[in-house]
Amino acid sequence: MSYYSPSIEKLIEGFEKLPSIGHKTAVRLAFHILNASNEEVEEFINAINAAKSNLKYCSECFNISDTDPCPICASPKRNHNIICVVEDVKDVIAMERTHEFKGVYHVLQGSISPMNGIGPDDIKIKELLQRVQKNPKISEIIIATNPRVEGEATAMYLAKLLKPVGIKTTRIANGVPIGGDLEYTDEVTLAKALEGRREIL
Amino acid sequence: MSYYSPSIEKLIEGFEKLPSIGHKTAVRLAFHILNASNEEVEEFINAINAAKSNLKYCSECFNISDTDPCPICASPKRNHNIICVVEDVKDVIAMERTHEFKGVYHVLQGSISPMNGIGPDDIKIKELLQRVQKNPKISEIIIATNPRVEGEATAMYLAKLLKPVGIKTTRIANGVPIGGDLEYTDEVTLAKALEGRREIL
Repeated sequence: MSYYSPSIEKLIEGFEKLPSIGHKTAVRLAFHILNASNEEVEEFINAINAAKSNLKYCSECFNISDTDPCPICASPKRNHNIICVVEDVKDVIAMERTHEFKGVYHVLQGSISPMNGIGPDDIKIKELLQRVQKNPKISEIIIATNPRVEGEATAMYLAKLLKPVGIKTTRIANGVPIGGDLEYTDEVTLAKALEGRREIL
Repeated sequence: MSYYSPSIEKLIEGFEKLPSIGHKTAVRLAFHILNASNEEVEEFINAINAAKSNLKYCSECFNISDTDPCPICASPKRNHNIICVVEDVKDVIAMERTHEFKGVYHVLQGSISPMNGIGPDDIKIKELLQRVQKNPKISEIIIATNPRVEGEATAMYLAKLLKPVGIKTTRIANGVPIGGDLEYTDEVTLAKALEGRREIL
């Protein structure tokens, strides 16, 4: 049984459908909307509508963007011969934040996950191969999928696929995160960190 | 510097303005909206619009409702001679959930808080007095403002105001919450619990 009036109830349900929003937060958000000015609410709704209608996927790298090609693919300052392969749009942002990568991206929009019924054909692997075949100047493919079961499987699959093409394929390193604590680092990560050790100059 | 395209950025900002939503959650919500179907997003926007346009304050008790008077004020099953005074619409819901209160409410829409520049005239105290004067059959006013500084000050103010009118004015009890732990109960609450002790039958 609900104690809220139908309109509030519907609004609360709307918020509850969003990820990581529980019932109590949904109630708080709904009442915030009710108490907000009409202008504020309109602005919020416009932001949702604009995002839904303006955004498209870049036909080159499948990053999400207001333009096609996306600003990264369109930029002459980027090195178009190095492609960093990531699972998700958010991973592009994470890489960009490092300011270290000057190449371009390829967003797979997922990872191979037989458990969830996602095979190689369900993500943008075919499109990556086409890019590689179209541009013979590509010198390196950096596979930056997440270091989890699905990401590792995807990385392995891509490496095998790209080997015959003869392009250098690399994988980002695993290890102890900066600021991390050996004591609290899991043994798999620590083993990887040991395995990937490098000489100090 | 932002790494997102302008439309996403605006949407993230929109979510960030909501209470208890930090940057990371805002990013997650924004991407959820982007990945959601147009129907889902439309439903969500409709819920917001409907809530904003349908909801009004009950002219009797100032509860928020799709109808005026609200279902509680309109119900012949409720005892209209006992008024429970609360600060906020959410407090009405909290009281209703107990299934113990059969009277009607008066929502002050705030509490007296000189620190925030909120005086007695800024909340619905005048309206409560008018209700009391209009209905001579009112037998009890239960003050259920929050047991915090502002709520207590408001309760005290109301009690003094209602005393000359000659209506019984009561305050909800303070004490150790059910399921609570004496060990972790603050001393003020415990003192109140002791002070409010009652004989066991």
